[in-house]
Amino acid sequence: MRESVLELKVDLGDRSYPILIGQGLLGSQDLTPYVAGNQVMVVSNETVAPLYLEAAKACFPGKQVDTVVLPDGEKYKDWQTLNRIFDALLERRHTRKTTLVALGGGVVGDMTGFAAACYQRGVPFIQIPTTLLSQVDSSVGGKTGINHPLGKNMIGAFHQPEAVLIDTATLQTLPPREVSAGLAEVIKYGLIRDEPFLSWLEGAITDLVGLQPEALAEAIHRSCACKAEVVALDEREGGLRAILNLGHTFGHAIETFAGYGNWLHGEAVGTGMLMAADLSVRLGLIAPADAERAGVLIGRARLPEKAPAGMTPEDFLTLMAVDKKNVDGNLRLVLLRALGDALVTSDVKSDSLQATLEAFCGASTSR
Amino acid sequence: MRESVLELKVDLGDRSYPILIGQGLLGSQDLTPYVAGNQVMVVSNETVAPLYLEAAKACFPGKQVDTVVLPDGEKYKDWQTLNRIFDALLERRHTRKTTLVALGGGVVGDMTGFAAACYQRGVPFIQIPTTLLSQVDSSVGGKTGINHPLGKNMIGAFHQPEAVLIDTATLQTLPPREVSAGLAEVIKYGLIRDEPFLSWLEGAITDLVGLQPEALAEAIHRSCACKAEVVALDEREGGLRAILNLGHTFGHAIETFAGYGNWLHGEAVGTGMLMAADLSVRLGLIAPADAERAGVLIGRARLPEKAPAGMTPEDFLTLMAVDKKNVDGNLRLVLLRALGDALVTSDVKSDSLQATLEAFCGASTSR
Repeated sequence: MRESVLELKVDLGDRSYPILIGQGLLGSQDLTPYVAGNQVMVVSNETVAPLYLEAAKACFPGKQVDTVVLPDGEKYKDWQTLNRIFDALLERRHTRKTTLVALGGGVVGDMTGFAAACYQRGVPFIQIPTTLLSQVDSSVGGKTGINHPLGKNMIGAFHQPEAVLIDTATLQTLPPREVSAGLAEVIKYGLIRDEPFLSWLEGAITDLVGLQPEALAEAIHRSCACKAEVVALDEREGGLRAILNLGHTFGHAIETFAGYGNWLHGEAVGTGMLMAADLSVRLGLIAPADAERAGVLIGRARLPEKAPAGMTPEDFLTLMAVDKKNVDGNLRLVLLRALGDALVTSDVKSDSLQATLEAFCGASTSR
Repeated sequence: MRESVLELKVDLGDRSYPILIGQGLLGSQDLTPYVAGNQVMVVSNETVAPLYLEAAKACFPGKQVDTVVLPDGEKYKDWQTLNRIFDALLERRHTRKTTLVALGGGVVGDMTGFAAACYQRGVPFIQIPTTLLSQVDSSVGGKTGINHPLGKNMIGAFHQPEAVLIDTATLQTLPPREVSAGLAEVIKYGLIRDEPFLSWLEGAITDLVGLQPEALAEAIHRSCACKAEVVALDEREGGLRAILNLGHTFGHAIETFAGYGNWLHGEAVGTGMLMAADLSVRLGLIAPADAERAGVLIGRARLPEKAPAGMTPEDFLTLMAVDKKNVDGNLRLVLLRALGDALVTSDVKSDSLQATLEAFCGASTSR
């Protein structure tokens, strides 16, 4: 059943673009107004393609629509897999007027966006995110890229899409673990910038975990609006945008330690946000009750609350030192000075950091 | 002996940058004003590094200067070699405030620029071109990238340097064949936009082939000024900038046929420009005497005047069809309507094109 389309504008001057949100948009929404030329290359993966590739192709009536299907998983977010997109584009003779379409989760979106940023020095692309995480996070903001064995997202570009299409119906086929991972980023927006949204989430979290459609649509809309607002204020991550990385410095260390793909990004961010909240308490920025409130919500979202088994504080320190949020060797972290109010600081006492790391290491993991 | 520095500004608004030209600048010119952070990564190759790497490092007093030395040659302009730059940056823990420096010819410049465009989604870089070709062409304009087995420069980005340092003394160690390849691009500027420069070149070509320093400095300065002017008018290659591709569509086909690196880029462009001039005559745009004049100058620059042995008109047509200057399947070519005046046109009669291809194929190559 086709419902109404909710449109949200990401305001970036001449790179502004719309986010279209609705139930059942895939296959019924005409996306040709966002395609300049005659060629479209839809990039998807082996999990998503059988479910939605035909519907996605139907969004581009009258165009030459080619497809490339990649293996599924964060461990394939590498040059070899990216190159399969370039192979397909060149074999099918796509010109610089082609449009790429990312149909899948964050990995497909990041790789397709980066392929679009680099193919013939830049072609347009459209995002059709099919996971909760990619709908509320990676499809908004223009960050694209691939991983390097020595660090996540180390190779990439800022490249804004022409449009983002979010069909909430795709979430009905999402595994529960990925729903939880997406909810981590949803909760993040409440924690960094929107206390009323955080309160709403505390009431809605059971519905969200249970995939109740109206609750999901509301959570996605408020999350995208929050991210779009932050990105519009700071497109190139000069300042404010850094608050979107709450939990990510710890989280990236967890993902790298666990091996790409063993912990989902959102799971690592969930634990990372708890670590940031814990450190915020130790630095006297928030009350213990605030961190506890965040912990309860993360737990109810069925996210892990400890670092992976076997990971030590030393592992964290080593892995965080190559994190790209470092500037000239100093550790900069996103912390909380209240629920709904984040700050970026380099003023982190090393004994407090050590205490937080120890508090989250050494336990058996919930994963 | 340190001579005076000639400074030329490439005017691109907030991405403007200077080109510094002079004899003996390497090692004596302080480039730290163009470095924002404390880290510098100098990228060079096995041929250039033994000659100039120490002098280049001396341009960055007080900075952490790391180096990476790549194998030399167009055939290494690929992802595997590019990745060695990322490896070095991550192993040496370079942050997003690092500055990359390209020390070498066009291949080093294109790869280092692309690495800078992609490393942590974009860091600044400085060009120190050491070949005539890269001094007058690839160091100006912001085009960066690598090759794909199915086409040259298919993967890349527009990324402007912070500064370009041209030390004309480096040309004294350049092999004669590379001098000629560079002169092809110098002659190009005269052909597309500057008839007085073309006349000057006809008088100076013997001095240039003989590496006479004052003639070289003048040729480099006028070439860079011409390219800087065109790039400033059309940074993203929307229109005018396409004239810089005179000879390149034919030339890319030649390079691909010959196998990357077997013909130098400038050699292929030299032959390609003669083909463009020949086709311009057949289409009634210029007089036979004009093409003849271009041919004499190309010949005196010791550039090949025929396609590679064994290459057929069909090879050209096949290889040109994936050239990125194609738009929606139509062949667009840069041609001449006078010496010093180029145009871009899709209005190319296929029998005239065929006649030009036949005229340049089938002979033994001068290479």
